[in-house]
Amino acid sequence: MRWDVLASEIVYRCRIFSLRRDRSRSRTGQTHEFHVLEIGDWVNVIPLTTDHRVIMVRQFRHGIRALTLEVPAGFVDEGEAPHTAALRELREETGYASTRLEALGSVYPNPALMNNCCHVFVAHDVAEVGAPQWDSAEEMLIEPIPLAGIPELVLSGAISNALTLAALQLLDLHRRRTPA
Amino acid sequence: MRWDVLASEIVYRCRIFSLRRDRSRSRTGQTHEFHVLEIGDWVNVIPLTTDHRVIMVRQFRHGIRALTLEVPAGFVDEGEAPHTAALRELREETGYASTRLEALGSVYPNPALMNNCCHVFVAHDVAEVGAPQWDSAEEMLIEPIPLAGIPELVLSGAISNALTLAALQLLDLHRRRTPA
Repeated sequence: MRWDVLASEIVYRCRIFSLRRDRSRSRTGQTHEFHVLEIGDWVNVIPLTTDHRVIMVRQFRHGIRALTLEVPAGFVDEGEAPHTAALRELREETGYASTRLEALGSVYPNPALMNNCCHVFVAHDVAEVGAPQWDSAEEMLIEPIPLAGIPELVLSGAISNALTLAALQLLDLHRRRTPA
Repeated sequence: MRWDVLASEIVYRCRIFSLRRDRSRSRTGQTHEFHVLEIGDWVNVIPLTTDHRVIMVRQFRHGIRALTLEVPAGFVDEGEAPHTAALRELREETGYASTRLEALGSVYPNPALMNNCCHVFVAHDVAEVGAPQWDSAEEMLIEPIPLAGIPELVLSGAISNALTLAALQLLDLHRRRTPA
């Protein structure tokens, strides 16, 4: 069911992505235009304390122009390993650090429109080691949330970022398969 | 922590979205550029048969240029109610119909970069009522998957679309709160 790309053009570029327009042909000979956001891979990291709290961040999100409650997340830098990016984003966004990072898998944020993947980690036994190190466009509230209260926050819509939900789903499935 | 938009410009338009560039100012006086994809709302619908299978679709996704296994999904049309869109997409993509649609909540696919939300439904007691009605850019394999086997498919990465994972997470939490 693959389509072949007949022609491709970058129609817009900015610092964090390029927008590409493809002209593609299906195996039945149909041709259509598809747009793809070329963007770097992401990490999402679920920071867990020894007393079973998740260190979450509340921040203003410019897409929906509202505050969201999410797990720490960010771009994997050029040449950086995903686990290094996860520990870096954890430290920068929250001021917490972990000595035991576990990979939970990878998901595609939007396989129809975007070409990137998001690597998901759980950071065990996190502890505060300093102040957050935000860049000039970042400002967050650090909110430790009891892990046992997460399902109710998802059901109520208080946690509503699909990538945070996917990460929590992976953690939940891992924990049910291998109880701590 | 809200930012004020100082200036806004549409830098690219196509059939399914517009790309907007905002110049915004934080409450501390920082100014930055942010890009937002203005795009319509989506629905994701989990079709459940009476014998506990999920009717999933496998299709070529142009963002990652690979096949994915997902629940039926699509745009809410202009003026259409989300539950109508869910039943329509279910019928068009799979040929199945349901007489009992239940809303599970809404998630934000990407609150940083996109302005839309995705309404999530479960369609109970679905049954095949005809052939799928794909548009010319659609072609799918219809794959009934035992609900009990979903966790292993998520853990193995065989199901990897973050929106499908978020939908399955909502279904799982609803079912654990209100066992059938």
